[in-house]
Amino acid sequence: MDAPTLLLYELAGADPALRFSPHCWKARLALAHKGLPAETLPWRFSEIERIAFSGQKLVPVLVDGETVVSDSWRIACYLEERYPERPSLFGGASAVPLAQFVNAWADTTLAPAITRVILLDIFERIHPEDRDYFRRSREQRFGASLEDVASDRAGNLAAVRAALQPLRRELAARPYLCGDRPAYADYCVFGMFMWARSVSATDLLAADDPVASWRERLLDAFGGMARRAAAAGRAA
Amino acid sequence: MDAPTLLLYELAGADPALRFSPHCWKARLALAHKGLPAETLPWRFSEIERIAFSGQKLVPVLVDGETVVSDSWRIACYLEERYPERPSLFGGASAVPLAQFVNAWADTTLAPAITRVILLDIFERIHPEDRDYFRRSREQRFGASLEDVASDRAGNLAAVRAALQPLRRELAARPYLCGDRPAYADYCVFGMFMWARSVSATDLLAADDPVASWRERLLDAFGGMARRAAAAGRAA
Repeated sequence: MDAPTLLLYELAGADPALRFSPHCWKARLALAHKGLPAETLPWRFSEIERIAFSGQKLVPVLVDGETVVSDSWRIACYLEERYPERPSLFGGASAVPLAQFVNAWADTTLAPAITRVILLDIFERIHPEDRDYFRRSREQRFGASLEDVASDRAGNLAAVRAALQPLRRELAARPYLCGDRPAYADYCVFGMFMWARSVSATDLLAADDPVASWRERLLDAFGGMARRAAAAGRAA
Repeated sequence: MDAPTLLLYELAGADPALRFSPHCWKARLALAHKGLPAETLPWRFSEIERIAFSGQKLVPVLVDGETVVSDSWRIACYLEERYPERPSLFGGASAVPLAQFVNAWADTTLAPAITRVILLDIFERIHPEDRDYFRRSREQRFGASLEDVASDRAGNLAAVRAALQPLRRELAARPYLCGDRPAYADYCVFGMFMWARSVSATDLLAADDPVASWRERLLDAFGGMARRAAAAGRAA
């Protein structure tokens, strides 16, 4: 029997091929880790009605037959429980809360730092209809204009590199955050790099950073799925 | 058969009862988790000769019969391997690299932020013979005098609270970082709070912070071992 086809709604830019949400990348990588083929559907900020069936307003949304799951963490837990015979996303119950901490670290420490670096790149690449919403919501969050937040380019980039210090210490000693092979905690962090890569030509990392070598390994994972994805300033 | 008596060399203040190193607390909590009674010996920065037998110059140093182990992470791994029949510090192999990441996060993100808040408190409480070494090494690290580093008290405290955001998000949803019961990743972070508590009257946390409730639970763990420890400005 073939694996069932799943649907994943992903945030897209003006170019529907551009999928830039870090949280949607977490879900896509979780599906790839489980070896589950999924159809990925582009979705834009303003298309709230299209995912109303999920009972909320954000992507990723996973549709698996009759089951609808939103929120990247809940999608990972759903896949782990629904497909236990496939490669584990966590490797055991004791790793689940710690993977969730890594996810929280990526969301609350890395993401705010990366946002400051790529804010104007995102703005340029989203659909014109989405720009008012994006500018208004982000300027409210920062209490400053997009242009002012982004203006200290060197300082913003240095802050990202400083925030990566715990990851850097670990990746100097082993190939993946989760050990010899990648697992869900790796994808929670790598999703942040796919977010930046998809919209921005700015490289978040120095070439000799151990984090950069790890990123290369994950770009190559799953037959180069992430490396082939549409990305700003890179050949398709 | 009684459990063998282990020796743990711990960093001490001018008052030998004051044990303030976060890394020594990690080791002491790991021993308590395993239910292993240990004799804890006070050690000061300047007593390099007293631990020369360990082949290096830092505490914690654990002596278990013929075996000598230094470095808190290696001590935890040693205890897990040597005493597998006792409660696990990690809960399974897949949690080990993620616990190590939490340790790296505590060491590279939390510790530098907390240092700025408690630097002068540490200086006051270490032995007069250790003060030159402490001032020289820390002022070199910061590129500024201890007094200058500590001068922005409100800003330094706000930075600690901001750095705790990923921990806060997780502890809003469950009692311990590791789940329903504490394990080594909890101790890696809690050790940082014992460091601050032992030398400083400044509370790092607001009373309504979910991190504060978690800290209370760990102060009560192991029969209140951490709560009973000598601490600045608190009744013994």
